Amino acid sequence: METHLEGVKFYESQSNVADSRLPVINNFVLNGPTVDVHAAEEFVHQAMEIIMDEAVRKSTDVKEKVCEWRSPEQLKELLDLELRDEGEPEAKILQRCSEAIRYSIKTGHPHFFNQLYAGMEPYSMVASFIIEATKTSLYTYEVAPVFTLMEEAVLRKMIEMVGWKEGGDGIFNPGGSMSNMYAVNLARYRYCRDIKMNGLFAAPRMVILTSQECHYSISKAAALLGIGTKNVIICCVNMCVCVCMRVQGAVPFMVNATAGTTVLGAFDPIDEIADICEKYDLWLHVDACWGGAALMSNKHKHLLNGIHRVNSMAWNPHKMMMASLQCSAFLVRDKTSLLQHCHSAQASYLFQQDKFYDVSYDTGDKSVQCSRKPDAFKFWLMWKALGTTEMEQRVDRALALARYLAQEINKREGFQLLMEPEFANVCFWYIPPSLRNLPAGPELWEKLHTVAPVVKERMMKKGSMMVGYQTHRDKPNFFRMVVISPQVSREDLDFALDEIQHLGKDL
Amino acid sequence: METHLEGVKFYESQSNVADSRLPVINNFVLNGPTVDVHAAEEFVHQAMEIIMDEAVRKSTDVKEKVCEWRSPEQLKELLDLELRDEGEPEAKILQRCSEAIRYSIKTGHPHFFNQLYAGMEPYSMVASFIIEATKTSLYTYEVAPVFTLMEEAVLRKMIEMVGWKEGGDGIFNPGGSMSNMYAVNLARYRYCRDIKMNGLFAAPRMVILTSQECHYSISKAAALLGIGTKNVIICCVNMCVCVCMRVQGAVPFMVNATAGTTVLGAFDPIDEIADICEKYDLWLHVDACWGGAALMSNKHKHLLNGIHRVNSMAWNPHKMMMASLQCSAFLVRDKTSLLQHCHSAQASYLFQQDKFYDVSYDTGDKSVQCSRKPDAFKFWLMWKALGTTEMEQRVDRALALARYLAQEINKREGFQLLMEPEFANVCFWYIPPSLRNLPAGPELWEKLHTVAPVVKERMMKKGSMMVGYQTHRDKPNFFRMVVISPQVSREDLDFALDEIQHLGKDL
Repeated sequence: METHLEGVKFYESQSNVADSRLPVINNFVLNGPTVDVHAAEEFVHQAMEIIMDEAVRKSTDVKEKVCEWRSPEQLKELLDLELRDEGEPEAKILQRCSEAIRYSIKTGHPHFFNQLYAGMEPYSMVASFIIEATKTSLYTYEVAPVFTLMEEAVLRKMIEMVGWKEGGDGIFNPGGSMSNMYAVNLARYRYCRDIKMNGLFAAPRMVILTSQECHYSISKAAALLGIGTKNVIICCVNMCVCVCMRVQGAVPFMVNATAGTTVLGAFDPIDEIADICEKYDLWLHVDACWGGAALMSNKHKHLLNGIHRVNSMAWNPHKMMMASLQCSAFLVRDKTSLLQHCHSAQASYLFQQDKFYDVSYDTGDKSVQCSRKPDAFKFWLMWKALGTTEMEQRVDRALALARYLAQEINKREGFQLLMEPEFANVCFWYIPPSLRNLPAGPELWEKLHTVAPVVKERMMKKGSMMVGYQTHRDKPNFFRMVVISPQVSREDLDFALDEIQHLGKDL
Repeated sequence: METHLEGVKFYESQSNVADSRLPVINNFVLNGPTVDVHAAEEFVHQAMEIIMDEAVRKSTDVKEKVCEWRSPEQLKELLDLELRDEGEPEAKILQRCSEAIRYSIKTGHPHFFNQLYAGMEPYSMVASFIIEATKTSLYTYEVAPVFTLMEEAVLRKMIEMVGWKEGGDGIFNPGGSMSNMYAVNLARYRYCRDIKMNGLFAAPRMVILTSQECHYSISKAAALLGIGTKNVIICCVNMCVCVCMRVQGAVPFMVNATAGTTVLGAFDPIDEIADICEKYDLWLHVDACWGGAALMSNKHKHLLNGIHRVNSMAWNPHKMMMASLQCSAFLVRDKTSLLQHCHSAQASYLFQQDKFYDVSYDTGDKSVQCSRKPDAFKFWLMWKALGTTEMEQRVDRALALARYLAQEINKREGFQLLMEPEFANVCFWYIPPSLRNLPAGPELWEKLHTVAPVVKERMMKKGSMMVGYQTHRDKPNFFRMVVISPQVSREDLDFALDEIQHLGKDL
């Protein structure tokens, strides 16, 4: 078990052998590998036992803590982060693995409600392990034959669920922000192909129209793509706005709508917006990173009515579908290889045209990346295991649980919903007894604003649960609970409300 | 062992219980989780055994094949890619895991020379498994405390090796193309901060100067960022060019140099270019995705002389350092939070300022992404295990092996180097006997051009090895062998040359 020293030993033993047949360059004996693969496998095997025990078994156990909170200063001391000249023995590295898991957040725990992802999905996790162990990149069929075809199959199926009868195209990306960025770039390319070559210097001022509550990545994309954050016009998208923009000499080239906003889980009326976009010939993109999951459910897919009419959409299976992070698809209703034309650079060292197979399977030039992870496999494997039917049940159950949570909040004294939930986001205040008799008004809001941060601090320091809070427009801090995981039950939701009450009642 | 059916069973059994105390919404009984976590763990455990055996042990075994080549059509039939309504039993899913590995390329095999990554790095692989099992995202300290601090530690150490005495900043990205994109955006932001808000519509024509042989991602970045591909001026960067550009009314705002080009492994003279950049106040970025590894070696770091003077650099530890894919750092010599200012969008739901810990540890707003993988951990763990010393030895040994390979090519009849290697890229032709008597000239080049693709086809169909080929300027197709892995030895290089000869001698 001294893999990391094998190399050193190897050099030492060889240098004592005065054998002139051994090739030596720059003092390196070049025969034989310097890593004992067998010992390395043994190390990986031992590490896997730790991972299984601590990151899989304990991390999903409701009786364990969600987190072992340490401040940055405390954690730095605990972890000994410094990187040194000398390596450490394997036992020490295994201990470091264990520590890394211990002080990481248990996002698979049934009391983790903090993000738009949660829970442990065994099939997807296994797929992600396979991706890591096979270590390859999705640019050519040659180095990623299996994953290339799986991405194609998953995209085709997702497009089918979206309802683009003519088919479409797509690409998996490192996150929904990237997908939204692709949308802006494609919309711009459709508006004027020359911008790819000439840049925006001679272009008229171009603007993106977006509905309220859009994700901040639209703004980030506008900044990055040279469009500018001030040219993201946040509005109720209607005909007046479009006309008004044109009168001002600006060119609206794209509308962004959201299916499942980050905080409230609200859905824009896609059909209505599609009418406007058709009339004014605007690219319609829907950021359905979060809400796209509703397409899996016959009961809830009406939330995205009109999605079959949009030009592109972002949908992250790593959110409600529970695929491992990251698993984000950008889909485009197009059969003219727009994605390829918009992004291609035709690197001759990678995308040789004289290969012996059909090079249309080399999908790398659709991407702004070069190396790209085969994230689609994480969704493919779980889809194979669960089938569409069980994925639908997961979505339906998550939304039923969210409904239950909202009902409980309505029943409980001191709890108040911000609004009836439209999706799986349940936003509410906890009002401690000391504030319950205050009249609605600035004093109450100001005091209420401080409650959620303190309750959050207390739950993290205790390690009992995690839930996010935020303001929204003029509203004081409120909790946002999100129900995703099928590992979550009614009991966990009851616990969460009890715990918030318990932690905040003295405030 | 029927995890994926647990949910179904659960609903069935509950629906027979006429217990009115059970909360039911939309026909879903909400008590208890619908996933049997214990059975799920058992599934993960069984899958891990397959992964260990097939993706770790067999895939690195020199006696096994590098690939089981199947055409897209054949592979589609073998894999049954279609996604259906009904899920499959676990035994079937385990079989699918096994198949996915079987038909994937064994990039950890000692005869895989096809990419600028190769080999199985056990520590980094384990780190990547931990990342997958802990499933979190690197935007706030709150959900990724350990990985946030590890990224900070790795960046600090990398910056120390680069030699930026005043320190710097950085971020890990999904690939070097993204790092280069960050460089263009930062350079533009430094040139004119208003572009972030206003876009490029009123800006003068801006140009990027880049040395020959730069990676195609510079062009992709220019297209995406609204600068335009024609405004990437490929030139020998010197004073004349800078002056000439200005005379033409264009504004050069950035110079891109390359340390370790993709095909030839060539290094631009950073010091000379830095002189020009200082004189003309241009942002100097060095794409050292590939060549950055030389900084680990006292013997070879002279290749990057002057790197301490540049404004930013890209360095991918997933290449010669062998970290798991992806592990790509963008480093910037700046202490004014330029990265943060350039990319921030201050999402209030994520980066609340009233948190109970120091929110400067919430690094998410430095990024153009929202979710971001904690890739730095893959480098941190291997660095801890190996120490700088052994990482240096790996680099030195890889370059000694490349030197050996070049020497052998010079010795062998029918093999010819394109040039003496500057780094670990060894570029050469194999000239079959039938062509050896042809005089240098168009006929020879034309025939030679067809040799590498056929040899490549044969090696893949046989599964004996993988090596890339490409043209370069007016040169006909040649092989590019890259030596990276410490699992590779002199014997493997001899094999590769023998095999190319064996596969191509009849051509």
